[in-house]
Amino acid sequence: MDLAPSLAGPWYTDDAIFAAEQQTLFSTRWVCAGRGEELAEPGDFVTRIVAGESLILVRDEQGTARAFYNVCRHRGSRILTDDAGRCAHGIRCPYHAWLYALDGELRAAPNIRDWRGEGAQDLGLTPVALEERYGCLFVNLAGDPASFDADITRQLLDRMGTAELIGHWELDRLRVGCSRTYDVAANWKLIVENFSECYHCPTVHPELTTVIPEFKRGAGTLTVPGYGATYGDGIGGFTFDGRPGLPALPALADDEARRYYGLVLTPNWFVNLVEDHVILHRLEPLAPDRTRVVCDWVFAPETLSAGHDIEPSVELFHRTNGQDFAICSQCQLGMTSRAFADGGVLVPVETQLGAFHDEVRAAVETAGGAKGAGHL
Amino acid sequence: MDLAPSLAGPWYTDDAIFAAEQQTLFSTRWVCAGRGEELAEPGDFVTRIVAGESLILVRDEQGTARAFYNVCRHRGSRILTDDAGRCAHGIRCPYHAWLYALDGELRAAPNIRDWRGEGAQDLGLTPVALEERYGCLFVNLAGDPASFDADITRQLLDRMGTAELIGHWELDRLRVGCSRTYDVAANWKLIVENFSECYHCPTVHPELTTVIPEFKRGAGTLTVPGYGATYGDGIGGFTFDGRPGLPALPALADDEARRYYGLVLTPNWFVNLVEDHVILHRLEPLAPDRTRVVCDWVFAPETLSAGHDIEPSVELFHRTNGQDFAICSQCQLGMTSRAFADGGVLVPVETQLGAFHDEVRAAVETAGGAKGAGHL
Amino acid sequence: MDLAPSLAGPWYTDDAIFAAEQQTLFSTRWVCAGRGEELAEPGDFVTRIVAGESLILVRDEQGTARAFYNVCRHRGSRILTDDAGRCAHGIRCPYHAWLYALDGELRAAPNIRDWRGEGAQDLGLTPVALEERYGCLFVNLAGDPASFDADITRQLLDRMGTAELIGHWELDRLRVGCSRTYDVAANWKLIVENFSECYHCPTVHPELTTVIPEFKRGAGTLTVPGYGATYGDGIGGFTFDGRPGLPALPALADDEARRYYGLVLTPNWFVNLVEDHVILHRLEPLAPDRTRVVCDWVFAPETLSAGHDIEPSVELFHRTNGQDFAICSQCQLGMTSRAFADGGVLVPVETQLGAFHDEVRAAVETAGGAKGAGHL
Repeated sequence: MDLAPSLAGPWYTDDAIFAAEQQTLFSTRWVCAGRGEELAEPGDFVTRIVAGESLILVRDEQGTARAFYNVCRHRGSRILTDDAGRCAHGIRCPYHAWLYALDGELRAAPNIRDWRGEGAQDLGLTPVALEERYGCLFVNLAGDPASFDADITRQLLDRMGTAELIGHWELDRLRVGCSRTYDVAANWKLIVENFSECYHCPTVHPELTTVIPEFKRGAGTLTVPGYGATYGDGIGGFTFDGRPGLPALPALADDEARRYYGLVLTPNWFVNLVEDHVILHRLEPLAPDRTRVVCDWVFAPETLSAGHDIEPSVELFHRTNGQDFAICSQCQLGMTSRAFADGGVLVPVETQLGAFHDEVRAAVETAGGAKGAGHL
Repeated sequence: MDLAPSLAGPWYTDDAIFAAEQQTLFSTRWVCAGRGEELAEPGDFVTRIVAGESLILVRDEQGTARAFYNVCRHRGSRILTDDAGRCAHGIRCPYHAWLYALDGELRAAPNIRDWRGEGAQDLGLTPVALEERYGCLFVNLAGDPASFDADITRQLLDRMGTAELIGHWELDRLRVGCSRTYDVAANWKLIVENFSECYHCPTVHPELTTVIPEFKRGAGTLTVPGYGATYGDGIGGFTFDGRPGLPALPALADDEARRYYGLVLTPNWFVNLVEDHVILHRLEPLAPDRTRVVCDWVFAPETLSAGHDIEPSVELFHRTNGQDFAICSQCQLGMTSRAFADGGVLVPVETQLGAFHDEVRAAVETAGGAKGAGHL
Repeated sequence: MDLAPSLAGPWYTDDAIFAAEQQTLFSTRWVCAGRGEELAEPGDFVTRIVAGESLILVRDEQGTARAFYNVCRHRGSRILTDDAGRCAHGIRCPYHAWLYALDGELRAAPNIRDWRGEGAQDLGLTPVALEERYGCLFVNLAGDPASFDADITRQLLDRMGTAELIGHWELDRLRVGCSRTYDVAANWKLIVENFSECYHCPTVHPELTTVIPEFKRGAGTLTVPGYGATYGDGIGGFTFDGRPGLPALPALADDEARRYYGLVLTPNWFVNLVEDHVILHRLEPLAPDRTRVVCDWVFAPETLSAGHDIEPSVELFHRTNGQDFAICSQCQLGMTSRAFADGGVLVPVETQLGAFHDEVRAAVETAGGAKGAGHL
C-alpha cells in the first residue's frame, strides 16, 4: 500500500514559513473577521487582528461596513483599543486628537491651518477591502484583491455542489446565540487538517459519533459535493446527548434536515450546517504554534426571541471543539522533532489534506519561498 | 502644506536597530546613571544597567565616584547583585573570593602565590569613564570617550542660551525627595519624542495645561533658547492643582520664577526646572519595545529638612508621567503595522523631532547600519 | 605567572553554539536519562527530553529497556504525555489510534486493510540506542553510535584508575531513596565546570568543607586517578553536620571507606561515591541559559528496607547543590557582558576545565562550527 506524504514538521514551526503564509494566504485572500450584526448601527466598531494587523471594522453613516488599519497617519499611534464600541462622531486618535470620519477621511487636526487643502486627502485612514456576505464580515488586505466570489463562493460551490443549497440556511438573517473563543497551542494548519478529516472521530469524539454514527467509521465525507452525514436512528437532534433540538430553519427542504454538512473554506472559515443552527469558526493565527479560534453558534432570530434553550445544541460542538483543540495541541508537540523532519503519511481517507497542503505550498512559493527555510 | 516625514515603524521595533543604537548612542555618549548623593560615603555602591551592561558605580577612598563592569576577571561571575549597598573593604566576588580594591585593582586571589607580581595589574576590574556633574553620575562606555562638555554641556547651552542660567538651580546641592520608576512598553525614542513636543498636551495633560495654560495651544517651546513657559494667572505653584508650592530656590532671579523650563538632553536625560524643585528623568532602554524610566524629584536640602509637604509638587509630574507613558505605549502598538512601514508625518510644531531623528540615523549609520534591516 | 584562558562569554549564551552542542555532544554521545529501576515491569515507561527531543523509554516484554522518539509515524502527534506510567498492551497514539508494540513495531491502524503487508514494517516507532549500565539508562541519538565502553567506561577508567574500583559500589543494585530536580538559570557547561573544580569550595560550601576539610584548601582532586578525599577527624559520616551516616556498602574495601570520590563524566553524568550511598546527577540542557538537573540519591536496598533515616545524608548534597546552582546562575549573568567577550582566566587548580573546553570546542567544530557565531 502506498501512502501519500504529509507536510514536514518545519511547516508547522518555522517563523519564516509562518510569515510567508501571513503575507500570502492571510493578506491576499478573503479572511472572515466577524459577524455583520456586531456593527448594528452607524458608528459601531470592532477591532480585529488579521495577519498580525490591528484593523478597525466600522459601519459608516450610509450603513456600509468598512475596514481600516488601526493606525493614525500622523505619528502611528494605535487609535482604538477597545474590542468593540461606538464612535458615532468619528474616529479620534487619543494622542494628538486627529479626527477621522467614518469613511476614513481626515476631518480635523489641531493647530493645522488650511487642513482641507491639498495633502489632507492623502492623510485619511488606510483602507482595507471589506465584503459583508452570508452575514459575515470578510476582509482582504491586498491592494487589488481578487473577487470574493472567485475565492469563497467558488469554494462553497465546490463543497455544496449547487449555489442554492447554502442559501436555504439564510445565513445573513441568523443571529449569534453563543460565541466562544479558544486559545489553541497549535499551528493553524493542524486545525484546518483536523476539521478536514474524520479519521480521528472514533478516537476523539464520543458525543459527535453518537449523534452521527457514520462518523464511527472514520471516513471523511467532505470530498462528496453536497453530501450531508445523517443523524443516527433514535437521535432527536444535533445536541450533546441526542435529545431533540430546536425548530428547523424554515427554508430547508425535507431531505436537508437531520443532516450535518461540514465545510472548510480556506484560509480561515469553517461552516457547520445542521437543521436548526449553524456553527461558524474563524481562525486567527498568532504564531507558528498558537492560534485563536472564535466559534459562533448562530440561530434563527425567531428561535432566540422565543426563548428556546440553546445550551444542549451549543454543548455538542463546544465539547467537540475542546476535544479537537486538545489533540491538535498534542500533535503540535511532535512537529519540532527530528523524527518528523520529513513528515508522516496520509491514509486514503485523508486525501483532502493533500489538496490543502498543495494550496499552502503554492502560496509560500509565491511569497518567494520562506527565506532561511532550506529544508522545504 | 508640506509635512516632514517621521521615522518609519521598524526604527521602533527592529532588534538590529536597537542593538546599533545601544552600541553607539548608549555606548559612546554620556549616559545619566543616577545621582551622586546615592554614593554618600566611600564604599557605597549602586549597580546600574547601561547599554545592557551591569555596571558597579562606587565611591572610592578618595571620594571619587568610579564605574566598573560588574564582571569578575577570573571566570566572569556577576559580582554585586544588590541594587545598592556598601563594600567598604573592597569588592569581593562571591564565586572564588577574588578581592578588588575600590579603585578596581585586584588585591587578593586565594591559592595564588606571587599575586602582586606581573600579570595581577592586568586583572583589575574593567573600568568605565564616569563624570559627576550637576549632582548626577554620567558614564560613558567608550574606550576613549569624547568630553562631557562637548556632549551634555553643549546641549545645555543650546537649550538654555547661556551657561549661567542652569547654574541658578544649583543642581549639585539639591537632594532627592522622591524617586519613582516606570516600566514603559514603548521604544525609548517614542519617549524622547513625546517629551520633545507639546502638541499632545491639550489632549493628554489636563493638570499640566491648567498650571501652564500656554501649553493648551499645543505649541512647543523647546526651540527657543532660554525660554520658560509661564504659570497661569491665579496659579500658586507647580503643583497638581495649582496650589502654592515650596520656597523658591535662593539663586533664581525674579524673572526665572513662575516658569517651567523643559530640557531633553540626548541620549537619555530630561531636566524639568521650576522655581522650587527640579524633575530629572533618565531612560534605560531594555528592548525595542520596553524602556525603564527613573524619575527623581530633587529639592533644596533646607526645604526637605524643614518638613515641607512635597507631595502636591510630586503629584503633578507623576500624573504627567503616567499620561505620557500610557500614550507612548499605545503609540508603540502601531509601530509594527505595515500601514506605518513608511512612517507618518511631523506637523510644524514638531520640528525638533526631525533633528532627533537625524541624530539617531547618523548614529546607526556609524554602526555600519543595522544589519538585516533592509527597509531603512 | 601565566594563566590559561577560559572560554569566551558567547559560548554560554549563543543560540547557534547551543544548537551545535545539542547536535553533537548530546546527539552522538551516551547521555544519562534515568535509572533502570524506573522501568520495573514490562510496559512501564518514562518520557524524557534529550537534545530537545521527547523520548519514550519503555521495558519490553523480554525485559529489555528500549527507547523511541515520542512521535507517531502517521501525522506526528506526541504519543505519551505523562512523565511515567504503564502501557502493557502497547503504545497507542491518542489522535487516530495507531497502535505500536513495545518493540516499536506498528501493530494496528484503523481503517487500513492489508496493514501487515509491505510498508507496515517501515512505519514502526523511530528507535534510539539504549544501554542499561551501572543501574542507569543511557541513550544515544546517533544513527550508528560509538560503543558505550569507548565513551562512558573509558572516562570512568581514566578517573578511577582501575575498572574494579567502581564495581565495589555495585551501582546496579542500589535503589533511589530520594530524587530532586533543580531548574538552574545557567548554561550546562557552567555546571560541569563548577563540579570540576573545588577552588570555589571554601567560599561556597561551608557544610561540605566541614565534612571534607581538605576541600578548604580549594585544590581539586579530580586529576589524580583513583584519589578519594578523606573525611575530617571526628566526622562521623557524609551528612550535613558530620553525624554518623548509614551502614557502609558491603563490597567496599576498608581504605575505600571514609572517602569521597567525585566523577564528572561528559556530557551529562556526575557520580559522587561515599561509603554508604551514591549521588548521581544528570543534566538536561534546555536553553543556553537554562538547565534542568536531576539528582538521585541511591542506597543499598537493605538500608532502605531497614528504615534507616537517610535525611541527614541527603541534606548534605542538597545544600551543596543549592549553593552550586545559585552561584552558577550568578556566573551566567556575566556571560553576556562585553567585559567577558574574550573570556577570563583559569588558575592552576582549574586545569581540568581546559580539557573540557577543548572537548566542547572540538565537538562544535565537528558540527561545522556554529553558524553566525563569528566571534569564536
